[in-house]
Amino acid sequence: MPRLTTAGSTLGLAPGILDIEHLPVLARGCAVMGGGGGGDPLIGVLMAREAIAEHGPVPLVDLDDLPDDGLVMPCGLVGAPTVMIEKLENGGEGARLAQEVEALCGRPVTAVMPFEIGGSNGLIPLTWAARLGLPYVDADGMGRAFPTMPQLTMHLAGVPATPCVLVDERLNTLVIRTDDADWTEWLVRANAAAFGGAGVAALYLMTVETARRATVRRSVSRALALGAAMLRAEADPVAAVVSAVDGIELIRGKVVDVERTTSGGFVHGSAVVHDAQAEDRFVRLEIQNENLVAIEDGAVRACVPDVITVLDVHSGEAVVTERLRYGQQVSVVAFPVDPVWRTAEGLAVAGPAAFGYDFAYVPPGGNGAGPA
Amino acid sequence: MPRLTTAGSTLGLAPGILDIEHLPVLARGCAVMGGGGGGDPLIGVLMAREAIAEHGPVPLVDLDDLPDDGLVMPCGLVGAPTVMIEKLENGGEGARLAQEVEALCGRPVTAVMPFEIGGSNGLIPLTWAARLGLPYVDADGMGRAFPTMPQLTMHLAGVPATPCVLVDERLNTLVIRTDDADWTEWLVRANAAAFGGAGVAALYLMTVETARRATVRRSVSRALALGAAMLRAEADPVAAVVSAVDGIELIRGKVVDVERTTSGGFVHGSAVVHDAQAEDRFVRLEIQNENLVAIEDGAVRACVPDVITVLDVHSGEAVVTERLRYGQQVSVVAFPVDPVWRTAEGLAVAGPAAFGYDFAYVPPGGNGAGPA
Repeated sequence: MPRLTTAGSTLGLAPGILDIEHLPVLARGCAVMGGGGGGDPLIGVLMAREAIAEHGPVPLVDLDDLPDDGLVMPCGLVGAPTVMIEKLENGGEGARLAQEVEALCGRPVTAVMPFEIGGSNGLIPLTWAARLGLPYVDADGMGRAFPTMPQLTMHLAGVPATPCVLVDERLNTLVIRTDDADWTEWLVRANAAAFGGAGVAALYLMTVETARRATVRRSVSRALALGAAMLRAEADPVAAVVSAVDGIELIRGKVVDVERTTSGGFVHGSAVVHDAQAEDRFVRLEIQNENLVAIEDGAVRACVPDVITVLDVHSGEAVVTERLRYGQQVSVVAFPVDPVWRTAEGLAVAGPAAFGYDFAYVPPGGNGAGPA
Repeated sequence: MPRLTTAGSTLGLAPGILDIEHLPVLARGCAVMGGGGGGDPLIGVLMAREAIAEHGPVPLVDLDDLPDDGLVMPCGLVGAPTVMIEKLENGGEGARLAQEVEALCGRPVTAVMPFEIGGSNGLIPLTWAARLGLPYVDADGMGRAFPTMPQLTMHLAGVPATPCVLVDERLNTLVIRTDDADWTEWLVRANAAAFGGAGVAALYLMTVETARRATVRRSVSRALALGAAMLRAEADPVAAVVSAVDGIELIRGKVVDVERTTSGGFVHGSAVVHDAQAEDRFVRLEIQNENLVAIEDGAVRACVPDVITVLDVHSGEAVVTERLRYGQQVSVVAFPVDPVWRTAEGLAVAGPAAFGYDFAYVPPGGNGAGPA
């Protein structure tokens, strides 16, 4: 039995165990870390609650406490989050993923890892861990949510993307093999669309030893700690988030415009927030599943790879991009991402240029430079 | 060593061996049997010529002469034939298909079979047989060409469509598993499109014993005999084809209109032929990769599942749908397909209703009834 992490103890709960009472805590943290993406965590909470009620709590384990040669299965939902709201799982997807992974690798899966901690994807693989009786790895491949597959720390670390297993709610199953991470992304995206807009995937299969150097470590614990800080907040829940993530508040006010289209497995669009205190202040967010850029008066105030999250001012909870709508009272918060994404290699994959922008990365708060 | 069929002997060539000199013969027959679909056989001839020159001739074997428990690999190109003209293979696709099939089935492939005899697909798997050093089965899954995957005799016989292996010219590889033949078609089509419009596939994997009752037998020999009859023709090559296939000539004249679009992995369109002898006679062909229906004065003159092929009046050679163009001097010939397609089950999958038409099947020549 591996030694368990003590993340749970910060909540006054049993150390190293994820139980039903952790789910709303984890969900709050994952939503904020998702930067508006990764899917609405409510779905993840509902799914994980049912799985844990049926199969019992799930050990949350640190990679240091798993055997070097153990097989880690990074997994999660792929496709457009707008679709995921209405396209629920059948419950057997995780078992089918593990079955295919085990057949491909010729050995059992040791632990389940979310490939992205942000949004619903921080919780849904927990559902599968519960059903499979496997521990949940206290790490992920992003430290946030990103819209495409090469935007994973495993990619930066040179782990092969494939074989990649893709499953839908009918248990239609695909195995993809390619030497090219961009082709993996393209084929995963095309098949998520063919499935009806979304599916589940396992990819970047690796040993525990590799995972220790190829992932964002302890991101599940970070999400739990963030969620706990939000729940403990009294006067101003937004301030509690800003403090917990070491971020800055870019604007607080009303959503006055939302544009959003779903196509090719992505949600694209933009939203404008009007300052509640200053008549002529606006911040525009540009969206591709996640909030990519915050622009004010033609200047970049925050951008990928950092996290930009829209919070409800009353509850402090994150508003995912597919739930943004006119009239919401929100705060836009930006905070730094795991340092691996600020390296030259990280910025090449997930910085502004990787999303087609022709301005250089600026840290949260911005440097006053224009975007073009 | 299995006993070989004697198809070759009708051409004065060594019995049961497919060599370079058979290729133009086979190509002519496959093109006519393709009903305008299956891809331009010229590409198949060029590919097979190179493979046979390098690896030697390929045994053409009857299913009766292979071991009962042998593994048959039905395979061919999938996607839009318009794309295949420009998107050539790299040569390694067949080996990759066989490698995946052998890993999935846990045993070696015994023989390669074209899943459709029509068009290029009657020849391209021969390329792979040559490179793999495997015999070519004298059978196929259609007896012609059809645009979608469930339109295979293996489907009628209850053989599972998956696991299906899909490969592109970059050797990107997919394995599809689903219990539903329509989902197989959908996912194959979506991935052919994702590959850039076309790819190669192996599916409906089966034993020799199953193949004996689930295929159109001796269709390679039939294509060879048809091609030989065309080459022997002297005065009127069209008449030679009509006689060889027991068909009827619907019209002879000029192509006066062609509409064609390529999308979603299909070629859709129509063509109109104006009678060279009668000023007011026109026949319109409706196309989905193959020629589906021939209509004259609102009456159906021929329709799926029977074969409708456009022939060049001078050479007697078939004109595939993607090569149809204004001004061509052509003859439109219709002839009966393998009887399995005229059963209730066959018509349900490949009759007019299966293509969205609301008229009942009529044999070649038509019954004078209108299409609506």
